Amino acid sequence: MLGTVLYGTGDVRCEEVVEPKILKPTDAIIKLSASCVCGSDLWAYRGVRDVNEPLAMGHEYCGVVVEVGSAVKTIKPGQFVVGSFCLSDNTCPHCQFGFQSSCEQREFMVGAQAPYARVPLADGTLVATAEMPSDDLIPSLLAVSDVLGTGWYAADAAGVQEGSTVVVVGDGAVGLMGVLSAKQMGAGRIIAMSRHKTRQDLALEFGATDIVSERGDEGVARIKEMTNGVGADSVLECVGMKESMMQAINCARPGGKIGFVGVPHGVELDGQMLFFQQKSLLGGPAPVRRYLPHLMDLVLTRQINPGKVFDLEIPLADVAEGYKAMDERRAIKSLLRM
Amino acid sequence: MLGTVLYGTGDVRCEEVVEPKILKPTDAIIKLSASCVCGSDLWAYRGVRDVNEPLAMGHEYCGVVVEVGSAVKTIKPGQFVVGSFCLSDNTCPHCQFGFQSSCEQREFMVGAQAPYARVPLADGTLVATAEMPSDDLIPSLLAVSDVLGTGWYAADAAGVQEGSTVVVVGDGAVGLMGVLSAKQMGAGRIIAMSRHKTRQDLALEFGATDIVSERGDEGVARIKEMTNGVGADSVLECVGMKESMMQAINCARPGGKIGFVGVPHGVELDGQMLFFQQKSLLGGPAPVRRYLPHLMDLVLTRQINPGKVFDLEIPLADVAEGYKAMDERRAIKSLLRM
Repeated sequence: MLGTVLYGTGDVRCEEVVEPKILKPTDAIIKLSASCVCGSDLWAYRGVRDVNEPLAMGHEYCGVVVEVGSAVKTIKPGQFVVGSFCLSDNTCPHCQFGFQSSCEQREFMVGAQAPYARVPLADGTLVATAEMPSDDLIPSLLAVSDVLGTGWYAADAAGVQEGSTVVVVGDGAVGLMGVLSAKQMGAGRIIAMSRHKTRQDLALEFGATDIVSERGDEGVARIKEMTNGVGADSVLECVGMKESMMQAINCARPGGKIGFVGVPHGVELDGQMLFFQQKSLLGGPAPVRRYLPHLMDLVLTRQINPGKVFDLEIPLADVAEGYKAMDERRAIKSLLRM
Repeated sequence: MLGTVLYGTGDVRCEEVVEPKILKPTDAIIKLSASCVCGSDLWAYRGVRDVNEPLAMGHEYCGVVVEVGSAVKTIKPGQFVVGSFCLSDNTCPHCQFGFQSSCEQREFMVGAQAPYARVPLADGTLVATAEMPSDDLIPSLLAVSDVLGTGWYAADAAGVQEGSTVVVVGDGAVGLMGVLSAKQMGAGRIIAMSRHKTRQDLALEFGATDIVSERGDEGVARIKEMTNGVGADSVLECVGMKESMMQAINCARPGGKIGFVGVPHGVELDGQMLFFQQKSLLGGPAPVRRYLPHLMDLVLTRQINPGKVFDLEIPLADVAEGYKAMDERRAIKSLLRM
């Protein structure tokens, strides 16, 4: 079959790869309904993260189960399933606390930019729908797997609640999903920080009440001005750079919360700064499994349409263009059709 | 009158100083019932914090109001009051959110290691008792002003609740007050990390269920062992050094919370480490004003006895010995009698 392999900076290829097989009795094999490129795939594509060996790319997925290992009990062939990019047993203490992304058996999904994929820890990781979803819902169900789940976690970690004033730093796909999530959680005001017209428009469609195009100190000053000098209750950091992290911290009010989901690169935080800022910080890989049932339900009942975040749809064979378009910010997020 | 002035490393003196006067209409002058030396006073005493000019020391206080400025409305001469080491108007948005230690008008108290002190923002800062408290309650009421309020905030920021497993890093006065606070909040298990017999004993008296004398990686391994490999729900960091901060972070479970109240010195935190640790961090100067009414009530009704943390009681004239004994860890906390 065809699959996506990253060889080095800017070098991602769709090429013949070995079809996945059951390797452990807890595995499942799924036939993907669609796949996509993640903003975090770009760290390696851009050379920010070292690539020491060819990488089987892709960790967002939904599709139909074709085979399960002998120890898989709840997931069955023929079911339509969505899973998290973090594989988890959903039974260990961390999973029970709702932090499945720190599961004692955690693995990260790989190789999902392909027609078939192996999903380890299938029972713990996958959630099946009651029936086969209609085709037009596939992009939104795929989004739940990571990008929406991650935006949702950012909002949750930032303590968004009814009436909160929320700032979203980062207008990538995750940031936009953060806007949608904050809206669902009842935020009173959602300020999206973005300087790109198409992303601003999508943010407004997802529920942003205000757009701030300034960034850095100017952006912070603008947020302060808009909140009577107070700052935001909740800030979602959806980038992962030093500048964006400081922007997020500075936008929050004392006692406010920052949910950070952009994987930090080159970010060092001074302890005394954090102390006197007096703001809560919680980040990490999103425990998407915790949110899967709720988010899938919101999609299946057509209450949300996160699939709109895909503004480029291409065949898997053209995956390199999917990366390139996102790298050059021509596309927010690329959907791959099998 | 006599007052306490720090001139440089190891050089603190009790000497003749000018009596405080009303400088602003929102000020009050109080006659202190007692004062004390704070662990944070030692940063300057030890030369960890630069001292560029003589410092009027002391920020913990309780006593009787002798005079108020023309704009002071609720506080009256003759009242017994306790105030926070952070002075606040208690009306600005940050105060309303319960973060009075980040008040828009915040000042830090100074000059309270003396018989009289000026308290700016008196109406916002001070809480009066209904009647004159009995003498034996003075040490506990004084403790509320900072050391107990700070330990309480650490437990609150660490999300301690009914049944929580709590670890306290640091066996100084604040750490011991953290133990007492966690106990009051209903923690199920309170593990005090301490290697000093007298402090271990006091921790047990304040409600610790376990003592761990190992520190660093060994200490973390011990905590993991005691929690079936999971880690603690809540960790109180009450030191402020790089090692203690990492110890605190490593002792918490994913999704757990760290309340850090030791003023960080030389602490740099790597963003990616914080991300993958997936633990919540909240620190800062304690918003003691938020807790004052509740904590004063617990003391006045004799439900808690935080004053036990003072294990050295000396006249103000001997304040230098109070610092020295704490610096050499011969005393946990020094009470100064006027």
